[in-house]
Amino acid sequence: MFHKNRIEAHYRRIAAKKKFAPTGGGREKDYPNDEDDPDLLVPAIPEDTPHIPYEPLKRSDEEVLQRSREYYELMAKRRTVRRFSTEPIPQEVLDNIIKTAGTSPSGAHTEPWTFVVVQDQETKTAIRNIVEEEEELNYSKRMSRQWVTDLKPFATKPTKPYLTDAPALILIFRQTHSWRQDGRKKMHYYSEISVAIAAGILLAAIQYCGLVALTSTPLNCNSRLRDLLSRPGNERLELLFPVGRPHSEATVPDVQRKPLEEIIVRV
Amino acid sequence: MFHKNRIEAHYRRIAAKKKFAPTGGGREKDYPNDEDDPDLLVPAIPEDTPHIPYEPLKRSDEEVLQRSREYYELMAKRRTVRRFSTEPIPQEVLDNIIKTAGTSPSGAHTEPWTFVVVQDQETKTAIRNIVEEEEELNYSKRMSRQWVTDLKPFATKPTKPYLTDAPALILIFRQTHSWRQDGRKKMHYYSEISVAIAAGILLAAIQYCGLVALTSTPLNCNSRLRDLLSRPGNERLELLFPVGRPHSEATVPDVQRKPLEEIIVRV
Repeated sequence: MFHKNRIEAHYRRIAAKKKFAPTGGGREKDYPNDEDDPDLLVPAIPEDTPHIPYEPLKRSDEEVLQRSREYYELMAKRRTVRRFSTEPIPQEVLDNIIKTAGTSPSGAHTEPWTFVVVQDQETKTAIRNIVEEEEELNYSKRMSRQWVTDLKPFATKPTKPYLTDAPALILIFRQTHSWRQDGRKKMHYYSEISVAIAAGILLAAIQYCGLVALTSTPLNCNSRLRDLLSRPGNERLELLFPVGRPHSEATVPDVQRKPLEEIIVRV
Repeated sequence: MFHKNRIEAHYRRIAAKKKFAPTGGGREKDYPNDEDDPDLLVPAIPEDTPHIPYEPLKRSDEEVLQRSREYYELMAKRRTVRRFSTEPIPQEVLDNIIKTAGTSPSGAHTEPWTFVVVQDQETKTAIRNIVEEEEELNYSKRMSRQWVTDLKPFATKPTKPYLTDAPALILIFRQTHSWRQDGRKKMHYYSEISVAIAAGILLAAIQYCGLVALTSTPLNCNSRLRDLLSRPGNERLELLFPVGRPHSEATVPDVQRKPLEEIIVRV
């Protein structure tokens, strides 16, 4: 655990080196470029952060093997669903799956994600309206004809009833950067890949607990949804997941996954 | 399940529309741009793919809640490890975790991934040599001074003994595109985000079965590792994961994750 005193001392040292006082949450342009001043080259977290032993539960080969089979069986049953039941899900479940996604690794432990969970019906309707308007343009004008054609077997279309039917929508915003406690800009390395890995862990959590989701990347919706949800300018919408239970009449396209031998190369 | 006959009929229809015979696995430049010829606008998988009922196991709210807690507890114990035991892991475990990653969703179900699993000691050494050479340059010349500084608390460095210690390295290559059965280019939509989501599911599988990994994005190593591993030109290295058990003296930096209230926004 970090010791609060140590963190504070760290930031006092940074502040002492700086020609201006720390203010917290300042804006990028208010500060000099770090590259110009080697005195400011201090890490975003204390350099003397201790390293502690890591001793996870040790499992036998037999147990590891058994669990690897069991987990594959569970995850292989996951499908993207486009018709949702309106049945609500407990708030704590949403909290837990987001906490789980938050355990994801990230570049230099920057955790560059904000999970916006929408359960309010009016906001879901507003989101649906925006996404449907943009999708109408995407399908008719912005996407290549080949792309629209390749989507036909999946029966995707600009109309998205799941955005108002699903009890919750989880929107993952990527923080392109943030600010340190001392007000300087904090760089978020590999933020795109970090956010998508967190999305994979979110999907794993949703599947593990017995719910379903639809993975979507709302094309050209970033600025309108960011405004609607009052997200700051350093955040960018990456993914949107309706989450809930499948409608009793939900169907999925009868496609299969590639067999192992098509995706693995053993060396 | 796809019926083989239906797929074959689908491709016969495509072939009949084309001015040239299908050859399979051709190269992009050998084929006209689809956009020039609307007759060629057929989906990558049959447009008449049937949709079938999806009825996953229905769990009660109580069970969903319980499982969401249990899964969070399990995943919260995951840490990135930089010292590995050389103890081997069963081949079937590697197969199963890769099969699990292969259940990931992807843009238009294109599954744009190749998982190269390296257990051969000589190849691991060759990979280590390449990564260390490039990392030496990354740290000294290519990365910003702020970036190198921000990594100090994590004790990362250009020397990577885990690349030869860990019993297996999993390298995820992203297929920027591929080829259809009829030889035409198959577009891989959202391939970056799809591959990273699959990496998240891979990490979830590794943690579930009781192994550890290190998430890395080998900077500037793509072309040398692609050549070493004889991967084709449509593949790009995205991530490299040493996988195994932690060394008995493995340590981790004593950092914490953001609390839920810092990553969630409820609407």
